[in-house]
Amino acid sequence: MKIVTTIKEIKAILKQERRGDKTIGLVPTMGCFHEGHLALMRRAKEECDVTVTSIFVNPTQFGPSEDFEAYPRDLKSDSKMAEKVGVDYLFAPSVEEMYPEENLTHVNVEKITDVLCGACRIGHFQGVATVVSKLFNMVNPDFAYFGEKDYQQLMVVKRMAKDLNFDLQVVGVSTVREEDGLAMSSRNRYLSSEERKAALVLSKSLRLASEMVENGEKNPGEIRESMIRLIKKEPLVNLEYLSICDTISLRELTIIKREALIALAARVGKARLIDNILIKGN
Amino acid sequence: MKIVTTIKEIKAILKQERRGDKTIGLVPTMGCFHEGHLALMRRAKEECDVTVTSIFVNPTQFGPSEDFEAYPRDLKSDSKMAEKVGVDYLFAPSVEEMYPEENLTHVNVEKITDVLCGACRIGHFQGVATVVSKLFNMVNPDFAYFGEKDYQQLMVVKRMAKDLNFDLQVVGVSTVREEDGLAMSSRNRYLSSEERKAALVLSKSLRLASEMVENGEKNPGEIRESMIRLIKKEPLVNLEYLSICDTISLRELTIIKREALIALAARVGKARLIDNILIKGN
Repeated sequence: MKIVTTIKEIKAILKQERRGDKTIGLVPTMGCFHEGHLALMRRAKEECDVTVTSIFVNPTQFGPSEDFEAYPRDLKSDSKMAEKVGVDYLFAPSVEEMYPEENLTHVNVEKITDVLCGACRIGHFQGVATVVSKLFNMVNPDFAYFGEKDYQQLMVVKRMAKDLNFDLQVVGVSTVREEDGLAMSSRNRYLSSEERKAALVLSKSLRLASEMVENGEKNPGEIRESMIRLIKKEPLVNLEYLSICDTISLRELTIIKREALIALAARVGKARLIDNILIKGN
Repeated sequence: MKIVTTIKEIKAILKQERRGDKTIGLVPTMGCFHEGHLALMRRAKEECDVTVTSIFVNPTQFGPSEDFEAYPRDLKSDSKMAEKVGVDYLFAPSVEEMYPEENLTHVNVEKITDVLCGACRIGHFQGVATVVSKLFNMVNPDFAYFGEKDYQQLMVVKRMAKDLNFDLQVVGVSTVREEDGLAMSSRNRYLSSEERKAALVLSKSLRLASEMVENGEKNPGEIRESMIRLIKKEPLVNLEYLSICDTISLRELTIIKREALIALAARVGKARLIDNILIKGN
């Protein structure tokens, strides 16, 4: 595996690779890898000739009061893990490399960014859509892999790629969980052991919702109430939002007909955690 | 020359062309060709192996009270002219082809769009930046050609391409003028013969400015005053703006040191005309 830090070099390398008609898979990440990231890389390895993983903690997608500075970075450990999975190129540019001068250009996706995380993290998805556009233009991949844990991010990137006619396919990969159900996240390391235990209520509440739908519940109000009742039993968990919404428009549902997304965010200690589940109605 | 109307076909054709390591030049236009457009195509022909000209009257860059419906369209005449110049592919998609569903994604360039035409035409440059991004992603050109007559548009596209790391070079081509000095524009055909005569004062005022600088004038206020005095002699010409500004930031200058852009827009009858001149200070 080769570590590349400049845009010029990654473009030159991939131009060469593309000549051999090879397909390129991109896994954009902020590093600090866990099994969730590795699942994206393994999927890219399976489906593409060349796998590129980018690591870039993108300042423009963090709000002023968010954890940009504190966000964990560990290129050494990340390199080892990516190499073991068989990644071909680890692209790890600096902030100066990505934003050499004032960035005046922004990519905005309307409507589906007004809800869920977008409603709480103003400017977040503009930062995401813009940096992903930049990475797409640098790497020019055939496939780009994003985790379903950040479901809204996946939908925003999919919509952006479609609207702007990026010549690639955005692939969503299932959330990877710890054995007890907690969704893997780089931010889990912010949790004390007590908080870690309390955080479990989030995935539990999603499983409860899933069971309710399986048992015929079609009313989002009933499901929400049961979930909130469960989550409130953990005083360390502060729910930020809980949404039962359409899987494409992300608008709140008044009745569950076929599919639905149940998504939530909560503060647990210093960590802001998100999780979601896709459910099928009866 | 082949006329292509679908995104799928233009992508397939150009993918094939690119295999032979051919360079691709794109000339994005709204059609209704005049010598200004042809100069862009000739330049592309000179510099690239394959020349693609797109014709798309983009609804999203017209304001609600602007001339989207009235904008002249003449694919038959355009085809003949492009073929004569040696264009390889004329890409002329419909509005439905370009925007098959509600477009939620917009590309915005800040600051340099707040002035000149951007101050008068709210949303115009968002429409331009977005549709040009789409065309860039469809055609994936090595070079893209834009006229200097729309100097602000050229700067917006250049900045967007740089900020978003589009893998191409944006090339500006000098304004082509009628023999008497009027800048060529598809909108000139809106002019009555009387208006056509009056409109000449715009290029005249720019030449006057250029002469003043050549003669040592460094004060933008003096130049502006002389230009406005001249333009006011034509009651059919209603000046919208007149700016003496930096060639990159497009901010008003208080003194002309080296380079400057003098740009103006005016209403003449039904037409909104723009023109500009790049001047070198002493």
